[in-house]
Amino acid sequence: MPKQSWRFRTGALALTILFAFLLAGAAFPPDEGMWTLDNPPLKLLKERYGFTPTQEWLDHIRLASVRFNDGGSGSFVSPNGLVLTNHHVARGQLQKMSSPQKDYVEDGFYAKSMAEEIKCTDLELNVLVSMEEVTARVLGAVKKGMTDKAALDARKAEIAKIEKESLEATGLRSDIVPLYQGGEYWLYRYKKYTDVRLVFAPEQQIAFFGGDPDNFTFPRHDLDMTLMRVYENDQPLRTKDYLKWNTNGAMENELVFVSGHPGSTNRLHTLAQIEFQRDHSYPYRLALYKRRLEVLRRYSTMGEEQARQAQGQIFGIENALKAWTGEYNGLLDAKVMAKKQQDENDFRAQVMANPELKKLYGTAWDEIAQAEKKQLEMLKPARYRALRGSRLAAIALTLVQYVTEIKKPDGERLEGFHDSQLESLRFRLFSPAPVYPQLEEMMLADGLQESLDQLGANDPFIKLVLNGRPAAEVAKELINGTKLADPTVRKSLAEGGEAAIAASTDPLIVIVRKLDPMAREMDKWFETNVHSVETSAGERIGKARFAVYGKSVNPDATFTLRLSYGTVASYSMNGTKAQPMTTIYGLYDRAYGFGLKPPFDLPPRFIERKDRLTMSTPANFVATTDIIGGNSGSPVINKAGEIVGLIFDGNIESLVGRYVYNIETNRAVAVHTAYMIEALRKLYDASVLADELEGKQVL
Amino acid sequence: MPKQSWRFRTGALALTILFAFLLAGAAFPPDEGMWTLDNPPLKLLKERYGFTPTQEWLDHIRLASVRFNDGGSGSFVSPNGLVLTNHHVARGQLQKMSSPQKDYVEDGFYAKSMAEEIKCTDLELNVLVSMEEVTARVLGAVKKGMTDKAALDARKAEIAKIEKESLEATGLRSDIVPLYQGGEYWLYRYKKYTDVRLVFAPEQQIAFFGGDPDNFTFPRHDLDMTLMRVYENDQPLRTKDYLKWNTNGAMENELVFVSGHPGSTNRLHTLAQIEFQRDHSYPYRLALYKRRLEVLRRYSTMGEEQARQAQGQIFGIENALKAWTGEYNGLLDAKVMAKKQQDENDFRAQVMANPELKKLYGTAWDEIAQAEKKQLEMLKPARYRALRGSRLAAIALTLVQYVTEIKKPDGERLEGFHDSQLESLRFRLFSPAPVYPQLEEMMLADGLQESLDQLGANDPFIKLVLNGRPAAEVAKELINGTKLADPTVRKSLAEGGEAAIAASTDPLIVIVRKLDPMAREMDKWFETNVHSVETSAGERIGKARFAVYGKSVNPDATFTLRLSYGTVASYSMNGTKAQPMTTIYGLYDRAYGFGLKPPFDLPPRFIERKDRLTMSTPANFVATTDIIGGNSGSPVINKAGEIVGLIFDGNIESLVGRYVYNIETNRAVAVHTAYMIEALRKLYDASVLADELEGKQVL
Repeated sequence: MPKQSWRFRTGALALTILFAFLLAGAAFPPDEGMWTLDNPPLKLLKERYGFTPTQEWLDHIRLASVRFNDGGSGSFVSPNGLVLTNHHVARGQLQKMSSPQKDYVEDGFYAKSMAEEIKCTDLELNVLVSMEEVTARVLGAVKKGMTDKAALDARKAEIAKIEKESLEATGLRSDIVPLYQGGEYWLYRYKKYTDVRLVFAPEQQIAFFGGDPDNFTFPRHDLDMTLMRVYENDQPLRTKDYLKWNTNGAMENELVFVSGHPGSTNRLHTLAQIEFQRDHSYPYRLALYKRRLEVLRRYSTMGEEQARQAQGQIFGIENALKAWTGEYNGLLDAKVMAKKQQDENDFRAQVMANPELKKLYGTAWDEIAQAEKKQLEMLKPARYRALRGSRLAAIALTLVQYVTEIKKPDGERLEGFHDSQLESLRFRLFSPAPVYPQLEEMMLADGLQESLDQLGANDPFIKLVLNGRPAAEVAKELINGTKLADPTVRKSLAEGGEAAIAASTDPLIVIVRKLDPMAREMDKWFETNVHSVETSAGERIGKARFAVYGKSVNPDATFTLRLSYGTVASYSMNGTKAQPMTTIYGLYDRAYGFGLKPPFDLPPRFIERKDRLTMSTPANFVATTDIIGGNSGSPVINKAGEIVGLIFDGNIESLVGRYVYNIETNRAVAVHTAYMIEALRKLYDASVLADELEGKQVL
Repeated sequence: MPKQSWRFRTGALALTILFAFLLAGAAFPPDEGMWTLDNPPLKLLKERYGFTPTQEWLDHIRLASVRFNDGGSGSFVSPNGLVLTNHHVARGQLQKMSSPQKDYVEDGFYAKSMAEEIKCTDLELNVLVSMEEVTARVLGAVKKGMTDKAALDARKAEIAKIEKESLEATGLRSDIVPLYQGGEYWLYRYKKYTDVRLVFAPEQQIAFFGGDPDNFTFPRHDLDMTLMRVYENDQPLRTKDYLKWNTNGAMENELVFVSGHPGSTNRLHTLAQIEFQRDHSYPYRLALYKRRLEVLRRYSTMGEEQARQAQGQIFGIENALKAWTGEYNGLLDAKVMAKKQQDENDFRAQVMANPELKKLYGTAWDEIAQAEKKQLEMLKPARYRALRGSRLAAIALTLVQYVTEIKKPDGERLEGFHDSQLESLRFRLFSPAPVYPQLEEMMLADGLQESLDQLGANDPFIKLVLNGRPAAEVAKELINGTKLADPTVRKSLAEGGEAAIAASTDPLIVIVRKLDPMAREMDKWFETNVHSVETSAGERIGKARFAVYGKSVNPDATFTLRLSYGTVASYSMNGTKAQPMTTIYGLYDRAYGFGLKPPFDLPPRFIERKDRLTMSTPANFVATTDIIGGNSGSPVINKAGEIVGLIFDGNIESLVGRYVYNIETNRAVAVHTAYMIEALRKLYDASVLADELEGKQVL
């Protein structure tokens, strides 16, 4: 391009931005996006739906939204601290409070009074109370001439410092959130709740009706709900910001919102990163977890109690396998990759067409491609040099690293050990949740055997751990010998510091002490050769994206609060149209259509009390709202800010949504509010609870 | 291969056949096949299901099976001539007996007594009473040294002769059926019934619930049934061979049979033929019929009566478009084509490996490939040099050709005009079924316009028909001027013979007289250059197939009686499992899920009488039985020879079945017998009819 005056250049830049926005309009179709609350898509909402949420509306939704740190979402739905989420989000806690005598996962639970509510073992809920941009401060820590690794360290140190200062100043959980691949950094402060009690959960069979086959599909008929109550100072939390319940619920073609915590997406990743996922990550992960699933299934066949112990992990792995298979198939689809290629080509062409952008950001894509190639060198050791599959082994590593890390200046610590993270870390580390030694042993043995098969007998890790002995024998010795199943043992080791760890003869601690240097070395290699490059180049791509597209693009998901919008809408599938909603009729159709055979059987109350139900009550529905794993338990909200549904899944076509959103077929799947009330009142004798939800009774 | 003794060669041949059978076992999976009744898959049935039908069983099923010459199947289901078929098979007749005052398609019908039954306008039913192989006689007519065209003519003449002899000897409709691409010829004799009366039809909306979207899909919930009664000498036909009704109906995993008249498949076509379909036939047909559909829809918007008149054709075209789209997409699937390529490669390799087979049949594939290429030359004229879209124009052409053809020796006539075919031809030609001139005009005008656009103003056909005038004007003149809507006019023209036709001033007769030579010339070109080559080379491939695979392969469908077998079985779809059956619950789920909006609305009685129904009654089910268009209305039969269901569709995955059968996903869709009885008794006050079906009452 010929030289131009500054003024003209500004004009050209403005034109570029306008053009980019038009392009963005094409590249990012209506209803795409998991938007941060500082940047809601006001323009798109107004243009497409003639609706402009007020700041009060946005604040109210934000403060009514709850993050389940186990990996899910929820919302306040009564003035008395009642939180609604999915059964499958609460599942881990239900399992932890279960015993061979009482299985809350399978049987469900209803507390007829507050006195009967059961405290969760180690559940932490977060509410986002403030957001502050700190991009300048984080990036300011990086000085010119620093290597990528030095820059990464500097950034990390600054992040830890900001988090710590904030925690000390406010007492609030304070997390730095990198957005747009590091194009922005935000300080998110959370109110944290750890006294959370179980109020209601239905039977697993109706929460997860259709089991693994129906998971990630639609039409669905699941009552995937759980209600918990948050306490503070042993009193139900008085919640000013809660979502009013709307029992009429979502209607076809209605504009709805989803407020929740999508875990992660890779939409802004470079093609090289996505190809790495396709060619190296998915094949590895799918094989690994299929193998684990086999071990768990073998364990389950050993007895009823073993089946109970394993079912949580089986559920989680089946769920992950189905999701990953969908994502992987998406990447194997030539059309999807062609679209990613096209998007990247367009973006890079615009960067290269502008000399300033080209100079600053032009090489970033190739740097990432190099890093992806580089990591192939160490991929196998990184994957297999670890005690895998055992929760106790993970606890041992955390303990061994904990005592060293907390002695260092905050900025120099390993990720996860910063001051601001320690309270949550200790909460998990000292959790009294049950450990099943027989299962631990079987999983660890299989993990070691696989490492041996992959690395060979001469690998330093194998030599150190097995030293020629059979994997099963070593696993037995480690799990039989360790005392780490007892949280008080963990606590005394953590409190005893480096001396206690050094003196410990606990076999897991002994072996992990020896492995720790190897783990740290590996970490460092990846930081130096891969992560620091990805961070640094990714940051430049993030800046380039701002320069080209502005904030019309929304950042990849980061398990932080996001707002999605869309409509309740049918879609083309299976040669026909999906119904926008299912009804209770549909539940019975599918159950009887399979002759009530698992996983399509029904809890007894659903047979015995069937005639009480209004069968045409909506059960589940689909909306174009853009969500992903982590959004489970998110409220579906109408324009009035009322809850009209409860997200619990995406359809099979939505799985590729990690990489590409397609409004034609991508659908979020939600439980309808009418179904929850119908079931509570007519099947569970829980009218008191239904009244609390519907605001008919103030406690 | 080195020279071998004769004995050894036999051994080698036997081995080849054995190996081929194993291969065939792989290439033709269990449950594939539309088997002729002379060659039922006894071995497969025994091996896979431990069931061997007796000859009596087979004869009984054959004699209880009915062909609807409109293009469908049915079966006798009572000793009093009651025939069960689909609403959509009976649809044409329902429309023909309707008027602006009474719409039997839309409203359905129930004759409370025999006196109320309504005679169908022009329906011919056939029952296959005997089968006789005549391969030697047909092929014997072809002498050495004949050209392909001469051989084709000789074959045709011999076929006409056999048919005529048989008709004269037995009085039975006698058709020669070429099987295995002409590898075998069979003489099928049919008992023919033309006094058929309507007994019961439900409302179109419940017969075709879900409309075009749900067509060719599953799960389904259609009551796609119609009952007719066959009369002879004005008395209900006494039917010894009828299927006993089993109201318990089909069960999951049950072995079932389908006896019906699959229209056509192309599984044994060569790759060159299939590629021609993919690259030339489907794109043309899809575009043509989409255009016709548009015209029909435009016509429908002109008024309620116009909508009624057009709905039959709209239904038919939507149905065809959906089926063809599925077939076309199948051929665009690289995996499907790779399988066809692989099958052909294997087959040809076996032919080429045997010097004798190689010499006799080795060149056949290339000859067909040449013919496919050749026909591209005349494709456009063949398609567009015709008065398309008008039923009256088709009648005119039939009349003009009829008077000439019947004067020729039987063997020299055009296909369709042989002595044995004349009775059925006259039955159709003189049918009093209503003609809608306004619709005729609009369709003809559009067809002419399209021909003009495609051929250009200088094409001889265009010059002859339009001669510079607008298509709409010519169409108006032709349709306004013709008297052919009146069957008595047609009859007098036909009876008046060549003189009457030559003297006619009916504008459609006048124009068709001029077009007839052009049509005949085109026919001849295709016979000489394409069909005779396809027939001759196809026959050699058919023989090669016998030599390699024996009769373990079943012939392509020919709208003649076939037996399929399989099980009622779920399949993987949409990321989950399809339920093997739907229930009445499912009907209401889908209706209410779409808010009762068309095409998911319900007839009033289904709302008003809903509470009478046992909702868990099976509604529709799927089976692995291999079917295709033409099988509509076929009975699903259990081992006891009882009817347990009524075929009405295939799932979307079955559409590629024209080319490849895949047991994993190909499913036939049927109405369950329990649903028919439940509806007749509880919704239609038709207990008398239900009693007749269930054998509870002898009339």
